[in-house]
Amino acid sequence: MIDLSDLTAVKSALRAQRIETPSWAFANSGTRFKVFPQAGVPRTPEEKIADAATVHRFTGAAPSVALHIPWDRVADFGALTRYARDLGVEVGAINTNVFQDEDYKLGSVTNPDAGVRRKATDHLLEAISIMDATGSRDLKLWFSDGLNYPGQDDLRDRQDRLAEALREAYARLGGDQRILLEYKLFEPAFYATDIPDWGTAYAHCLELGERATVCIDTGHHAPGTNIEFIVAFLLRAGKLGAFDFNSRFYADDDLMAGAADPFQLFRIMYEIVRGGALDPAYGIKFMLDQCHNIEAKIPAIIRSVMNVQEATAKALLVDRDALRAAQREGRVLESNAILMDAYNTDVRPILADLRTEAGLDPDPIAAYRRSGYQEKIVAERVGGDQAGWGA
Amino acid sequence: MIDLSDLTAVKSALRAQRIETPSWAFANSGTRFKVFPQAGVPRTPEEKIADAATVHRFTGAAPSVALHIPWDRVADFGALTRYARDLGVEVGAINTNVFQDEDYKLGSVTNPDAGVRRKATDHLLEAISIMDATGSRDLKLWFSDGLNYPGQDDLRDRQDRLAEALREAYARLGGDQRILLEYKLFEPAFYATDIPDWGTAYAHCLELGERATVCIDTGHHAPGTNIEFIVAFLLRAGKLGAFDFNSRFYADDDLMAGAADPFQLFRIMYEIVRGGALDPAYGIKFMLDQCHNIEAKIPAIIRSVMNVQEATAKALLVDRDALRAAQREGRVLESNAILMDAYNTDVRPILADLRTEAGLDPDPIAAYRRSGYQEKIVAERVGGDQAGWGA
Amino acid sequence: MIDLSDLTAVKSALRAQRIETPSWAFANSGTRFKVFPQAGVPRTPEEKIADAATVHRFTGAAPSVALHIPWDRVADFGALTRYARDLGVEVGAINTNVFQDEDYKLGSVTNPDAGVRRKATDHLLEAISIMDATGSRDLKLWFSDGLNYPGQDDLRDRQDRLAEALREAYARLGGDQRILLEYKLFEPAFYATDIPDWGTAYAHCLELGERATVCIDTGHHAPGTNIEFIVAFLLRAGKLGAFDFNSRFYADDDLMAGAADPFQLFRIMYEIVRGGALDPAYGIKFMLDQCHNIEAKIPAIIRSVMNVQEATAKALLVDRDALRAAQREGRVLESNAILMDAYNTDVRPILADLRTEAGLDPDPIAAYRRSGYQEKIVAERVGGDQAGWGA
Amino acid sequence: MIDLSDLTAVKSALRAQRIETPSWAFANSGTRFKVFPQAGVPRTPEEKIADAATVHRFTGAAPSVALHIPWDRVADFGALTRYARDLGVEVGAINTNVFQDEDYKLGSVTNPDAGVRRKATDHLLEAISIMDATGSRDLKLWFSDGLNYPGQDDLRDRQDRLAEALREAYARLGGDQRILLEYKLFEPAFYATDIPDWGTAYAHCLELGERATVCIDTGHHAPGTNIEFIVAFLLRAGKLGAFDFNSRFYADDDLMAGAADPFQLFRIMYEIVRGGALDPAYGIKFMLDQCHNIEAKIPAIIRSVMNVQEATAKALLVDRDALRAAQREGRVLESNAILMDAYNTDVRPILADLRTEAGLDPDPIAAYRRSGYQEKIVAERVGGDQAGWGA
Repeated sequence: MIDLSDLTAVKSALRAQRIETPSWAFANSGTRFKVFPQAGVPRTPEEKIADAATVHRFTGAAPSVALHIPWDRVADFGALTRYARDLGVEVGAINTNVFQDEDYKLGSVTNPDAGVRRKATDHLLEAISIMDATGSRDLKLWFSDGLNYPGQDDLRDRQDRLAEALREAYARLGGDQRILLEYKLFEPAFYATDIPDWGTAYAHCLELGERATVCIDTGHHAPGTNIEFIVAFLLRAGKLGAFDFNSRFYADDDLMAGAADPFQLFRIMYEIVRGGALDPAYGIKFMLDQCHNIEAKIPAIIRSVMNVQEATAKALLVDRDALRAAQREGRVLESNAILMDAYNTDVRPILADLRTEAGLDPDPIAAYRRSGYQEKIVAERVGGDQAGWGA
Repeated sequence: MIDLSDLTAVKSALRAQRIETPSWAFANSGTRFKVFPQAGVPRTPEEKIADAATVHRFTGAAPSVALHIPWDRVADFGALTRYARDLGVEVGAINTNVFQDEDYKLGSVTNPDAGVRRKATDHLLEAISIMDATGSRDLKLWFSDGLNYPGQDDLRDRQDRLAEALREAYARLGGDQRILLEYKLFEPAFYATDIPDWGTAYAHCLELGERATVCIDTGHHAPGTNIEFIVAFLLRAGKLGAFDFNSRFYADDDLMAGAADPFQLFRIMYEIVRGGALDPAYGIKFMLDQCHNIEAKIPAIIRSVMNVQEATAKALLVDRDALRAAQREGRVLESNAILMDAYNTDVRPILADLRTEAGLDPDPIAAYRRSGYQEKIVAERVGGDQAGWGA
Repeated sequence: MIDLSDLTAVKSALRAQRIETPSWAFANSGTRFKVFPQAGVPRTPEEKIADAATVHRFTGAAPSVALHIPWDRVADFGALTRYARDLGVEVGAINTNVFQDEDYKLGSVTNPDAGVRRKATDHLLEAISIMDATGSRDLKLWFSDGLNYPGQDDLRDRQDRLAEALREAYARLGGDQRILLEYKLFEPAFYATDIPDWGTAYAHCLELGERATVCIDTGHHAPGTNIEFIVAFLLRAGKLGAFDFNSRFYADDDLMAGAADPFQLFRIMYEIVRGGALDPAYGIKFMLDQCHNIEAKIPAIIRSVMNVQEATAKALLVDRDALRAAQREGRVLESNAILMDAYNTDVRPILADLRTEAGLDPDPIAAYRRSGYQEKIVAERVGGDQAGWGA
Repeated sequence: MIDLSDLTAVKSALRAQRIETPSWAFANSGTRFKVFPQAGVPRTPEEKIADAATVHRFTGAAPSVALHIPWDRVADFGALTRYARDLGVEVGAINTNVFQDEDYKLGSVTNPDAGVRRKATDHLLEAISIMDATGSRDLKLWFSDGLNYPGQDDLRDRQDRLAEALREAYARLGGDQRILLEYKLFEPAFYATDIPDWGTAYAHCLELGERATVCIDTGHHAPGTNIEFIVAFLLRAGKLGAFDFNSRFYADDDLMAGAADPFQLFRIMYEIVRGGALDPAYGIKFMLDQCHNIEAKIPAIIRSVMNVQEATAKALLVDRDALRAAQREGRVLESNAILMDAYNTDVRPILADLRTEAGLDPDPIAAYRRSGYQEKIVAERVGGDQAGWGA
């Protein structure tokens, strides 16, 4: 069993970890079958930010919130940024949602129609302007572009169009701004997706240059994909930029991070630790990207933050010297046992201590429930339109 | 190569084949990301029926249309039935959609709340009343019920609740009415679905009795599932009642039947032919259950009907005597070659002849396009609310 | 966090748990690419039994060993049984391996050739005679039968042949003997397998009668299959008879139980506990069925026994009253949290205590390594033919 | 329907197509459960070549045979090359099988032991010497290297080791020699494979240089992978070097090419045609890589060659001008219909004509069966050791 007598380094690393929450996760969401609205859901970008700040207030580990454009478009992004800072959080990645206009029915930047491509590319440029206004460093690009039927469009032409739009956006980046390029196996396209896997995202990032890196969404892979391998590979190549954490049993289920396969999340975080990429200075962005269709949203996001923290704590507990020695000597069972020893350790007391030391409640969910925040937003957020898909 | 000199029996079987269209496929549909509305989409059950009748007018093979309750609820189902008949089609299966009320957030007939279960079960009974009023024989039951998270509810209790609701509906059946029980691997539930596979549906049908049979939706299986095996097995057990045809590459993509894996559709139809179940007297209902998110709806449905017909024609061309002899003698390559010989045959001329003989245009899609129907509905169906998910 | 102050009931249940090891796991094994032989591997059924007894000696939880016929065929099964008892273990399930004779190339009990079917069925009957001789209660039936190519044989005829062989074996059962019928998605058949899923096994067991139950091999499912659902369903139906535990990431990888998805193993064991089926009196047989291609075999099997015990301990820790209350009230997050609380608990100290109380070393693997057994078998088992696939 | 009045260009392209057969496919093969030996199977590299030449004699389309080292190692490769030429075939790609020595239990070029890595790398260099001796242009590299258990070895270190071995082999290439780098999702490694997907192979090829390209084995992907997308992407990047054709329903089933999903094979060949890569001058190598565990080997390989030809013929029939116009205008159904029109055409008469024009029998399988070759090899190849896995 792991020696837990000196946790100084582990706690220090955990203390530095930052997890970004996504504004849309606080809003209503659902499946194609139904969006079940919840009471108290935010109606404006400001209310989403207030909820994100609440998650940070109870966890101490979620100090930024990603925005989605056009959903979170406001007249004055400078004011929104100040509003967020006043609540204790920063504006995080800017996401470009080019999938809900009628024009995007057959694609955005890969659309066969040049006019639609122009519009979509302009949207990417607008998002960079929002980054300028908010101080956000990260342009997160996910494209729903793809085909539903064989023959529907030319697979290769679409790559050319994609490359062209990416080049234009890349050229517009300034300062330390960068592109986080996401991939996804399928949905909403059901036959071919224009960036279906990490290889495609990686190849485009290589073409673009050093400011373009890959974003791994843990729910966007084919069955059986070894995600930690991709993590290790991209770290070695210097091309891993971000994570969208969430859980899946089947497709892009977008369940709470750590809910479906906590062992996988641990293995991912182990590769992060082993690659020296947990350190905020390394630049990897750890984001949640999930939705809460039937469960209460704020506590679900708090739980997800905690799950990522617990996986990270276990990863930090791995006896890496012993592991390396066993691996080098080909001792299969011992190597595996050393990894599992860390995974099997109950790290919740460590994180509870960490919170207490930081002046937080050791149990963030219980503290949130006692806080009255949920009752307050249910009471106050009456009238107006609840935010949700498309809002 | 197959001898095509005498097609009498093949044509006779094809002439008898009936494919049912689903009312919701004519309406707007989409993914959780976006529903792209189309011009001319029906606004009422009557307009959906008119579109279904149009499909039948051009194919001669789609003489009934399945209704979905509550979407297609009308004040006078007798009048709706007469309206359909006047247009040349019958009311087909009655589908019970117990997934869009707020009450159904945690399930319908398996909900932990007894009141919600009562409401859902009453909905099933109402559907049987609609069957009484329309002369429909088939109660098609698909439940979205399931769990998103481990522990969310008790898997076994939910089976008890399911069984209870099914028993009550079954007891209410009269005349030649029957239950078609559908299963689905996942979606909208992302951890556990209460009827996830054919085995579960089959077991419940066995418990219910001979009026309960399984409905196979071709898009509702885990990757790698051999669907024609299920067809053969259920036919042997006398428990196959219906098909919901559609295509998938990944999940429940609901693409046009025959679009993703035409060879699989052929193998399915071969098992139907081999099992003597193509004959309408056998009682299998061949339905489409799909949606057309980016392509024009009526021609997509016409194409799907044609794809099912082509797969059936190929299945009918298999030289079954030769196949059986080769199988019995363990001649692997010859057996496979006999099957493939039929599959590789171009049967489109056979179906074109069949249509011409029936006074139809040999090319239903071209005929539809020339007919002016599309222009007419686009022009006429202005104002009102387009039907779609939830409408 | 779980209250661990009174573990009396948990320990009592753990103390009663019995896990059966498979004789073939001690022998050489591999993939189609290569079998890597290991030093000290048994050469005879007796040596396999000695290794199984060694696993039991260090774990106290593996008091029986499953045999595979013809691999473990001996002249005097009575003597073999006494030999096992002298070493402290019982002969467990008798497995019928009808897949390595030339005759079985196109199937055993479903072969198109009646003579081969006769031979295969006789093999099943022989296995029952071995059960008579050894006192084994369980006839475990797994058939590799299936097709590599569409059309190769008639899917439905093969079900008839399967049913006939099963009926004959079932009729031969005496005393408290029973059939455990296993299913598998694919391999070695690559297009269709004659018992591919639990539904097929269940349907045949229903036809046979109450002495026939389903055996779940955790590695034999399609991607995405919810195995604990199957456990819950079969328990409800009274038709779950046994488990073959092992781990998989992709196909039937046969890795150590608990190695690939320990959370899944916990969920499975939770359904066992919830269904009252952990009690040996219930009659479920918990077996390992795995192989150790690159790792040392005996410690890998000890580790697997421990993994099953740990998953069971966690399942026993679930606060079922609290869980039921939260489930009934539809509190999604709380229900999930109650389950996860048990999973996140480190139960290794509980099992260490249990072993100490039973006079065993708290760390079975370390104790095995210190014992000199491995060195002894490496030194002694020289000459002769190592057992392996087919041996 | 496609206009078949002028097939000059189609036939010309088909006439130029070359499909390479793999020497191991003529030998015995099987699953981990059993290798069923067949009468007449070759015992030596020369006999394998004789069988390959026989396939070419009846198809006119398989003028080269890939060798596998060490299985096909001979004392004098110059003599073997002349022997092949005398029979009418060339020596094709040289495959390096670094997976059957005891040393390779934990990997070859990625093994933690430097000595084993040296041995494996030397094997690659030896293979290049064999290329020098035979005139073969292609070094085909597939590595079974990977891990069975999390933690077993360091994922990232293994990439470093892999890169080092590849660099050394690459540096040794001379003349027009090149590397074809293959990837595979899993098997024989069951947790992580060192080159699991096209992205990994592509990244290593980029690092190596222009003489390194990716080889796509159609059976080596995760469920749901869109292979034609990979084809299109790699062609655009100039990094597609070869295909290993075979069929799969589940894992790496290695069934006859075109047997499981002929529509997929057609879509792949369409991307080849669309990318201008069918022309032999382009340099793509079209190879079979499959095995015939239960069916007769030579006719199975003839059938596979024919299946690839038929898929190619259909791909060539696509009306690309009409398709491009429909795609550009976003006419979804028409685009799909244009593709399907070609797929639904029966091209067997075209290929029969082509064979007749080339002086071949229009039905290669029937001609092979009549030829007496099978009877001859069964009679002659008696004594000696049949070649098979490891032989």
